[in-house]
Amino acid sequence: MRVLVVGASGTIGRAIVAELGQRHEVVTAGRSSGDLQTDITDREAIRTMFEKAGSVDALVSATGKVKFAPFEDMEAEDYEIGLQDKLMGQVNLVLIGLDYLSDGGSFTLTTGVLDSDPIRQGTSASMVNGAINAFVAAAAIEMPRGQRINVVSPGVIEEAMEVYAPFFRGFEPVPAARAALAFAKSVEGAQTGRVYRVL
Amino acid sequence: MRVLVVGASGTIGRAIVAELGQRHEVVTAGRSSGDLQTDITDREAIRTMFEKAGSVDALVSATGKVKFAPFEDMEAEDYEIGLQDKLMGQVNLVLIGLDYLSDGGSFTLTTGVLDSDPIRQGTSASMVNGAINAFVAAAAIEMPRGQRINVVSPGVIEEAMEVYAPFFRGFEPVPAARAALAFAKSVEGAQTGRVYRVL
Repeated sequence: MRVLVVGASGTIGRAIVAELGQRHEVVTAGRSSGDLQTDITDREAIRTMFEKAGSVDALVSATGKVKFAPFEDMEAEDYEIGLQDKLMGQVNLVLIGLDYLSDGGSFTLTTGVLDSDPIRQGTSASMVNGAINAFVAAAAIEMPRGQRINVVSPGVIEEAMEVYAPFFRGFEPVPAARAALAFAKSVEGAQTGRVYRVL
Repeated sequence: MRVLVVGASGTIGRAIVAELGQRHEVVTAGRSSGDLQTDITDREAIRTMFEKAGSVDALVSATGKVKFAPFEDMEAEDYEIGLQDKLMGQVNLVLIGLDYLSDGGSFTLTTGVLDSDPIRQGTSASMVNGAINAFVAAAAIEMPRGQRINVVSPGVIEEAMEVYAPFFRGFEPVPAARAALAFAKSVEGAQTGRVYRVL
């Protein structure tokens, strides 16, 4: 399979490339590194990435930004960051990718444990993750040409705990390599419309 | 209690007013009808509504627009309708209402069964409903002054089946009066961060 990984240089992205690279041809993409550069908030940049990528059987997205701040400090503009980046950025990868992915190809997006287990300062992350999970379940039943779509919702990643620990006390960290297995399940399995939780 | 119902003239809104009006002082708001006029996509209009409403112990929102269309026809702009109206419109009611609601006051938002049981043409509705459900769970743990927040996720409303039936085959319709009970549970109960499903 030819797999395009967006966000390939991130903590989860590197683990996905290591896992899938054992069996598949992986094309890496990122904002400033990788085989291809793109910006998921810019639809033209997404289109350019797919044009350059050539044939793709699976699109994996492990990218997306949201703002963390105390709820009382959050304003509409702060939520807009997550809505335009992590949510619509990933959704636009799908909307545009539909035309480029092969018959039976798959999309795998990323959310996270805050979809159902909230923390302080995380209202935007929860909102965006909940949106993506529900979008994936709905899009799955309308995908054309046998294409599939799933999402991986990992717990807080062990390799990122140095930064995130104070916000995620009591959360059991998930090694990036374990999270990467769920991406392999989505890409190499046959299911669709699933939220793969790695906790 | 003094309860402000936004979207009071809709099918669910009227049932909420009938239910809560038996025991509480209800102030109705809508785009073009009710005691107060507002537009949930316009933050100034929301602020004006709260200024005119006087003291409010509970804000109930039964409003919000999303676009329904086949997935392959949906573009980013189509999703933006639901993100700015049903999602951020209701979130802005909360963000602005925080300053106006009494200590211990409650917010109750509305989503719907497509949050977890998708239909064709419903990817935007599912996305937005999933976003609101997750947002409510997260916001609940950071609400100031003992304020609470819940969301009601009703099935397809019986009184609306004349229009919606072709899209919701096999869905058991929920009378608006039954859905209204969940709003009473949220407003008059003591729970927070809950998704009340009425199926």
